[in-house]
Amino acid sequence: IAKEVKDALSSSSLIRKMFEEGAALKKIHGAENIFDFSLGNPDLSPPPAFHKTLLELVNEETPGVHGYMPNAGYPETRAAIAEKVSAEHGVLIDSSHVIMSVGAAGALNTVFKAILNPADEVIVNKPYFMEYRAYAKNHRGNIIEVETEDDFNLNLEGIRSALSNETAAVLINSPNNPTGRVYTSETLKALSAILSLHGEKTGRYPYLIADEPYREIVFNGIKTAPVLNAYKNSIVVSSYSKSLSLAGERIGYIALSPDADEAALLAEALIYATRVLGFVNAPALMQRCVERLTKETVNIAVYRERRDAFKQVLDAVDIHYAEPEGAFYIFAKVPHRKGRAAQETDAGEDDLAFCEHLKKYLILGVPGAGFGKKGWMRFAYCVNDKLIKASADAFKKALAAWRGEMIR
Amino acid sequence: IAKEVKDALSSSSLIRKMFEEGAALKKIHGAENIFDFSLGNPDLSPPPAFHKTLLELVNEETPGVHGYMPNAGYPETRAAIAEKVSAEHGVLIDSSHVIMSVGAAGALNTVFKAILNPADEVIVNKPYFMEYRAYAKNHRGNIIEVETEDDFNLNLEGIRSALSNETAAVLINSPNNPTGRVYTSETLKALSAILSLHGEKTGRYPYLIADEPYREIVFNGIKTAPVLNAYKNSIVVSSYSKSLSLAGERIGYIALSPDADEAALLAEALIYATRVLGFVNAPALMQRCVERLTKETVNIAVYRERRDAFKQVLDAVDIHYAEPEGAFYIFAKVPHRKGRAAQETDAGEDDLAFCEHLKKYLILGVPGAGFGKKGWMRFAYCVNDKLIKASADAFKKALAAWRGEMIR
Repeated sequence: IAKEVKDALSSSSLIRKMFEEGAALKKIHGAENIFDFSLGNPDLSPPPAFHKTLLELVNEETPGVHGYMPNAGYPETRAAIAEKVSAEHGVLIDSSHVIMSVGAAGALNTVFKAILNPADEVIVNKPYFMEYRAYAKNHRGNIIEVETEDDFNLNLEGIRSALSNETAAVLINSPNNPTGRVYTSETLKALSAILSLHGEKTGRYPYLIADEPYREIVFNGIKTAPVLNAYKNSIVVSSYSKSLSLAGERIGYIALSPDADEAALLAEALIYATRVLGFVNAPALMQRCVERLTKETVNIAVYRERRDAFKQVLDAVDIHYAEPEGAFYIFAKVPHRKGRAAQETDAGEDDLAFCEHLKKYLILGVPGAGFGKKGWMRFAYCVNDKLIKASADAFKKALAAWRGEMIR
Repeated sequence: IAKEVKDALSSSSLIRKMFEEGAALKKIHGAENIFDFSLGNPDLSPPPAFHKTLLELVNEETPGVHGYMPNAGYPETRAAIAEKVSAEHGVLIDSSHVIMSVGAAGALNTVFKAILNPADEVIVNKPYFMEYRAYAKNHRGNIIEVETEDDFNLNLEGIRSALSNETAAVLINSPNNPTGRVYTSETLKALSAILSLHGEKTGRYPYLIADEPYREIVFNGIKTAPVLNAYKNSIVVSSYSKSLSLAGERIGYIALSPDADEAALLAEALIYATRVLGFVNAPALMQRCVERLTKETVNIAVYRERRDAFKQVLDAVDIHYAEPEGAFYIFAKVPHRKGRAAQETDAGEDDLAFCEHLKKYLILGVPGAGFGKKGWMRFAYCVNDKLIKASADAFKKALAAWRGEMIR
């Protein structure tokens, strides 16, 4: 067994242990009685159009429909995605700029394989989805963490300082997991200017990789800003895991800026990486599905209602959180604990303890340490809204005990 | 763009060029007029039971059926595969020994990630599917090639000599691509004895990895020998790409010997690797399909008939080949060319030229160099049998010209 993997297994055992304990709680109390806000597994069914399309495709049963196609995907699927991405990103791309992928996780591994030389660096913005670290390591890259601003917007000065000759890419994720933050066009333009200046000075223009499976999940008129028209060496990775609730089907794509340096060779490199990493191609039937559903999403209003319900729950117990503008997570500050000095709370050592404490009240979340940000917690609200509302009482009891306001 | 990938793109350009030329020929002459034996993309439709099951599943539309499940796959699917594998391999395994994968290519990358330390060696048997080299390299491993016997059976003495302290695994592929060879139980037992002895001496028992997507495709009463009961540290990887003609759907699995050293930790390492390599899980709907279809295959008799038809075509022009016992490939020796000394033909420098020559007669195949074996050619007979029979005339003309028996 590979040493790197053995080490990863033992170091991730804390979070694994929490999940196992959560599973044990569900066995004891029944899953419906556990306030499980730990997982980003959308509970909304795919939209009716998906079911209809899938049924049509299965009934058509075109010969060869389950066989190999080019590694990059069906030309027609790539063309349909190119049209969608062009509209979203304010550029004109065609099928040659799109490579179908096995979800966004597969897409990121493919991109890293295609662009990283040994010891190359990928800049990420804390808090972040920590799997990025493993993805980069798979392909001999190193993750460089930059703290975001207090409101979890990008810290552009921090990114500028982190750039080096080894910087292969800056990776952004908007709408963000875990904070729900959505970066503005102005922010992306400013970031682009920084990367362009760095490129002019060093001759190496870092890639800007936008991981955006939550692009469509935004609230109250906020729009996810275009990326491909902001910077020449930009790459978008996305999936239908969230927008169509198809997380288990592993269908996504990579889209390139048409102005990327050596764009044609980069596309070839990505197709090669798709092949040799063993993805070979994105699942055939799902490619045909998403080709016909480029205008569909799940009902985003449901997530907005849940967000508002969750905000009410946290407001009622006076827990501070970052206002989520998109995705389906709320990132909450661990409140001050009885008997702790304020500076200890601020030092953010309490997220694991708070997580454990909430578990006694059958509330499950993920400690901020799991996103590189101690002292905070992520709650995923991609669950039934009744469960969110029903958790209010449990939160009240849990917080009273945490703050020493009543004896348990 | 990563240097390793750039290098791979330019070195694989010869075979890519041949494929591109093949595609160009199809445009000129019409695809139906090209004798394309180059690709292992099964043209048989999945069996009727697959279509029926898929339709049932789509109509059931169980909530959450397209969502995330545990990274290893649905417990019920893993249990169904465990039952199938137990019967095939003469062992008793349960769901904990099965991890669902994104095809066999995904499975092999997952296994290599889980077991390879930097500079570890994987022994393969020539000729072999050359993607293995890229898969190992992805995870910092090196491929060590061992020549097979003249009849393409395993060269056990060669494998013994190639074993070292760096040997992490011996990789076998039976029924074999490109030779169609099927190894006997006796051969596997002898190989097991060699690996066990090496383990006793060095303390490191190499894994025996059996890549067997063609297990069910065997002819004339030949059986694919069990592997998991032959050696303790054995791992089977497989897919439904060939047995159910689902190559584009990327559905496969990894199955472990229950006696493997640290079997539980190995399973955990494989599940972790599945996750961080970005597969995350095997496609959800296809997992549910294969769970219900463990006893189904395409009609194998069709492949046997095609094999026999292809043998007749080659016999008629006196081309020597390895008798295929399984899979859907025939590996043929490049015949002696007019004006060449016999020893030059034997030196096997002619496969690229022969391939080019056949192309003039609209016959496409893959030169042996693409499998590490110059002087041979692979023809894939997973195509319509009318095309095979119709190629006889083209072969006759091509061979007469190659041998200088008539003026073109």
